[in-house]
Amino acid sequence: MKSDLDAIMQARNLDSFIVFGNAENNPPMYYLTGGGHVSHATVIKKRGEQPVYFYNDMERDEAAKSGLKLTPYTKYDYNELLNKAEGDALLASAMRYQQMFDDLGITQGRVGVYGHYDVSMVFGVLSHLQKLMPKLEFIGETREDSIFLRAMETKDENEVERIRKMGRVTTSVVGRVRDYLTSCDVRDDEVLLKEDGTPLTVGDVHSKIRLWVSEHGAELPSGFIFAIGRDAGVPHSSGNPTDLMRLGQTIVFDFYPAEAGGGYYYDFTRTWSLGYATPEAQELYDQVKEVYDTLSDNFDLNVAFKDYQKMTCELFEANGHQTLLNTKAPIEGYVHSLGHGVGLNIHERPFSGLTASDDQRLAPGVIITSEPGLYYPEKGMGFRIEDTLWVRPDGVMEKLAEFPYDFVLPMKKWKK
Amino acid sequence: MKSDLDAIMQARNLDSFIVFGNAENNPPMYYLTGGGHVSHATVIKKRGEQPVYFYNDMERDEAAKSGLKLTPYTKYDYNELLNKAEGDALLASAMRYQQMFDDLGITQGRVGVYGHYDVSMVFGVLSHLQKLMPKLEFIGETREDSIFLRAMETKDENEVERIRKMGRVTTSVVGRVRDYLTSCDVRDDEVLLKEDGTPLTVGDVHSKIRLWVSEHGAELPSGFIFAIGRDAGVPHSSGNPTDLMRLGQTIVFDFYPAEAGGGYYYDFTRTWSLGYATPEAQELYDQVKEVYDTLSDNFDLNVAFKDYQKMTCELFEANGHQTLLNTKAPIEGYVHSLGHGVGLNIHERPFSGLTASDDQRLAPGVIITSEPGLYYPEKGMGFRIEDTLWVRPDGVMEKLAEFPYDFVLPMKKWKK
Repeated sequence: MKSDLDAIMQARNLDSFIVFGNAENNPPMYYLTGGGHVSHATVIKKRGEQPVYFYNDMERDEAAKSGLKLTPYTKYDYNELLNKAEGDALLASAMRYQQMFDDLGITQGRVGVYGHYDVSMVFGVLSHLQKLMPKLEFIGETREDSIFLRAMETKDENEVERIRKMGRVTTSVVGRVRDYLTSCDVRDDEVLLKEDGTPLTVGDVHSKIRLWVSEHGAELPSGFIFAIGRDAGVPHSSGNPTDLMRLGQTIVFDFYPAEAGGGYYYDFTRTWSLGYATPEAQELYDQVKEVYDTLSDNFDLNVAFKDYQKMTCELFEANGHQTLLNTKAPIEGYVHSLGHGVGLNIHERPFSGLTASDDQRLAPGVIITSEPGLYYPEKGMGFRIEDTLWVRPDGVMEKLAEFPYDFVLPMKKWKK
Repeated sequence: MKSDLDAIMQARNLDSFIVFGNAENNPPMYYLTGGGHVSHATVIKKRGEQPVYFYNDMERDEAAKSGLKLTPYTKYDYNELLNKAEGDALLASAMRYQQMFDDLGITQGRVGVYGHYDVSMVFGVLSHLQKLMPKLEFIGETREDSIFLRAMETKDENEVERIRKMGRVTTSVVGRVRDYLTSCDVRDDEVLLKEDGTPLTVGDVHSKIRLWVSEHGAELPSGFIFAIGRDAGVPHSSGNPTDLMRLGQTIVFDFYPAEAGGGYYYDFTRTWSLGYATPEAQELYDQVKEVYDTLSDNFDLNVAFKDYQKMTCELFEANGHQTLLNTKAPIEGYVHSLGHGVGLNIHERPFSGLTASDDQRLAPGVIITSEPGLYYPEKGMGFRIEDTLWVRPDGVMEKLAEFPYDFVLPMKKWKK
């Protein structure tokens, strides 16, 4: 939780940190400031003190909403610095950062560096700043284990409610997509038709999904997956817009909208087959569902997340599938990790990969996805079931939004 | 243009470059790959050679759409590297980058570093990589003048057509907002009402704008501004959702949608006053429009963009306003720069600030905004007029989308 930041900084031996970038679509900055239309901002925090928010004057009203201590960039005379730097903008910018650090009394120690931002500018500025302030040591961290992902790993009640609300948006849109698809007319060759009698494409469905998300005031900052047939068998294919919607083919709908302005995500997947399923597809779907249920029965407080990845691999292997446990870089079978934390990042701690650290556990306050799947692109099919689960302080794993697990969706105007 | 990249690298004395991050919402990566659902990718290019695209196996179909030379990360045994690095993920990642550079025969020289991505990870990895490959020198550049912003500064025909198309989307949505507002019922106290008889808020209008953008398959990755009254007088205030929509107050609608998936932007502003305008507001609007028109009459091929910022300041000063030319960090009057380039970045070269370099010119192929404005937050009003203009190869400045400049919008169901 955010209140853990000082302790996490101490454990990492960080004396201060600096966050670069916009307030939106930049998880560390959003986490500290609450988002809003503030661009090219900076937050600097000394351990044990409140963060200070540096912003452009034009965005002062938006910055003020953060409730943080505010300093406009105009406090520093950039043009004078640019003259002093003989026109070298990176150096002038580094000199301004030097003044900002000086003003906060940060003149030595380890400084963590964060933000989703222009890496070229940050790298260039820090190269200069390191020379200007040799007593500061700038520290980069992995995407998977920064102090922010550590703090974000457990959610407070307000965060849980915001994610739960996105869960309602998610299932509402998914239900609308299901109802739309199952009400379509079907041509003799089992192709779905639009209202105007022309074939319904994956691209048409993509457009409807975007529209319906927008009606909820939500956004799709990381896209989404709605794919059929072979594309459903490639886990991260977003779906080929020109594919036709056909009966009896697997559809993977992996859907992860977020609050507008770079806020909290929800993550969810269902796999459908319209009208009917081939016996092979039904069997593979049933296997995925059985693994999903076995996992749900076995999730337990404070167990390492990766233990369940191992369990998932073993369960799928028992059915003869390739997995990451028995095959290097498989492209069919169970080819990915079981899940991940969800919050301001669509993928965050705890991670479940076989090489993840033991301390990524189902600790109280953690919110994870459980998303086993099977992929057979050459057979033209793929399967995944995913929900977002909250590890409640009382140890109960609570699914944050309910939605049925039907695989075959009966078509209202068609019978086999 | 993209075809200029090798020449620009040579001028900067760069032997190669590396781009980090997702293909979407990451301009340098989008520019090279064409976008798509490819996350945590890398592109490395040696000067004079084709770029190589490194990607996660699960996203191979999306990566293949780029037409670039492809290498999956799985070519490199990350787990073995992680063992060798004794569990230090940043070091293991740096060792993998070392292998990637080695494979491309890049073992020395200056390497530009780019991408909109996790700055912590990139800084940490490069710190290690610099030690592993001491003959490589990593180079950061400013946001305003990287080799990518240089290449992107002039657009090819395909880019112009994509921006023009976003212009049509933009003006279509703006027209719909205008038609909606002017058709509202008005309460006795001059507050606009929704269909259900309750007051229309700025937040309601924001929701409709989001929805209508989505219907065009476009997105708002940098947000938008629809603000009334005092908020219209703060250039980057996005608008207070709880404000009521009232007659006779200035509304600034600054609207910059982009193609879905992190593509090209359009940038556009109109200022409206519903039903009637106060004489003071009308006078200030007329001044802004006059400056806008004077600029349009004076734009000329190959002139430095900042010359027009100076002209704009002088024109406004002649009317007694504060500007950046006569006042340090003004918060009323004309408080920002005249415009900027538009493309995959909402703000890109050429820039028009008074300290911008002389080589940021109205060169053939450049696409800019012209957006003079006046801001008086204490008077509760603000004004801006903005269009996106293409400097055609024949020297003509072509506005990429037409929309009327009416300030007072007559209300269909109300008369003063």
